[in-house]
Amino acid sequence: PTASGSVACYGPNAYHSPMTPTIDLLMQHCSVRRYTDQAVSDEHISAIVAAGQMAASSSFVQTTTVIRVRNPDTRAQLCEVSGGQPYVANAPALLIFCADLHRNAQCCAMHGQSMQSGFIEQLLIASVDAALVAQNSVIAAESLGLGICYIGALRNDPQRVADLLGLPEQCFAVFGLCLGYPDQETQTKPRLPHSLMLREERYDGADDPSLIADYDATMRDYYASRSSNVKLQSWSEPMSALLGQKESRPHLLAFLRQRGLATR
Amino acid sequence: PTASGSVACYGPNAYHSPMTPTIDLLMQHCSVRRYTDQAVSDEHISAIVAAGQMAASSSFVQTTTVIRVRNPDTRAQLCEVSGGQPYVANAPALLIFCADLHRNAQCCAMHGQSMQSGFIEQLLIASVDAALVAQNSVIAAESLGLGICYIGALRNDPQRVADLLGLPEQCFAVFGLCLGYPDQETQTKPRLPHSLMLREERYDGADDPSLIADYDATMRDYYASRSSNVKLQSWSEPMSALLGQKESRPHLLAFLRQRGLATR
Repeated sequence: PTASGSVACYGPNAYHSPMTPTIDLLMQHCSVRRYTDQAVSDEHISAIVAAGQMAASSSFVQTTTVIRVRNPDTRAQLCEVSGGQPYVANAPALLIFCADLHRNAQCCAMHGQSMQSGFIEQLLIASVDAALVAQNSVIAAESLGLGICYIGALRNDPQRVADLLGLPEQCFAVFGLCLGYPDQETQTKPRLPHSLMLREERYDGADDPSLIADYDATMRDYYASRSSNVKLQSWSEPMSALLGQKESRPHLLAFLRQRGLATR
Repeated sequence: PTASGSVACYGPNAYHSPMTPTIDLLMQHCSVRRYTDQAVSDEHISAIVAAGQMAASSSFVQTTTVIRVRNPDTRAQLCEVSGGQPYVANAPALLIFCADLHRNAQCCAMHGQSMQSGFIEQLLIASVDAALVAQNSVIAAESLGLGICYIGALRNDPQRVADLLGLPEQCFAVFGLCLGYPDQETQTKPRLPHSLMLREERYDGADDPSLIADYDATMRDYYASRSSNVKLQSWSEPMSALLGQKESRPHLLAFLRQRGLATR
């Protein structure tokens, strides 16, 4: 892998040459956490969200609400929730993507129905809907020369986020999205080889341990060779530290249930 | 709205003119359910999935596995699970997007750890990860002239899908994706106005019922005027029928728990 975004690491399934300008854009993605002072115009935010909304939506439920936060005090508090990621406070634009079944509950009320709520299926649909809208928005933003960073750490304290943003029942913030014009070098990270993640007909993971070991070597080379933030680590090591040694936001289930989500 | 994909229905936040060719592509999306016989090449599938993988991944967990299904018998069974959607059997390509924490559990095992599993946070991360990968894949595919249709209805019988595809513990099929070259006219559907889904600083839904009523009128006009599959319906009516009158896949919670997901 090189700073120019080569993806030779893909191995036999490598994607070597641009097929379309849009694929070329997708292949250049990396998260951007340092931005210039240039503002993101309202017109661009509007276009970015409009492009986001054109993503497919399960049964056309359209369960995504986007909240743009500019207020410095709210931004500072969201930054605190995120564990102090400075761009949450300082990025030129911050959008909060909410999974929002409240609007759909209102549709039911308009027709004399009460929404049959609380199904984990609905949580899944609403979260996937928000993710599809967000990823389309990200691609739109990157096509305009912007850089982005997702902020999943808002789920560190989802109740505080809900209170700050005045979220109704049946609605919660899945993640935030920082946007701005990049003020850093960007370098793409090698992804899992297709031998590990693209399969034919059935799962069959018999070779996975040795394939993960190979990918670990790729990642060790990548982290050691990059131009900044050099690290000595593989892929499986940080995964083991993340998922083997730490609980994953154990407060979330009680929060979602209290929101009227994921109770059945 | 017109067949050419105008989005005048967005109102004051309307996106009127293409800002970038990629945004223009995103704005033209509609689901495609009829395809020509032309195959999707292995090279294109590989590029589509590679572009998908370049989406951001929370803590770089890379919890998405894609299974390409060609076997006609498996395709027929998946079609049955989907409630008989014929393109699940007949589309030139079918990819199944799985939320897959099994690979991450293997990483833990490689380092002498046992994954602390079962958190709903992990279900959310893995499902959002799959959605981000899928949406990037969709954009890549559409840039190549392909049409797509998501298949959420695989969750009608997630255990049968898991058995058919040999999915391990900690892994389930979130949705399928049909791909092929379009053999139908396409027409974009008006999305929620920004007054309803893009908010400043806080949620504030006081005007929502009247805004939903306005959008209902937009949708009634759209369904009545389209070139095929004309319907007399609004937006809030089918939402009310979907969410007020029917349970939402009530079997899913037990399935996810049995998979080792969403127990805490």
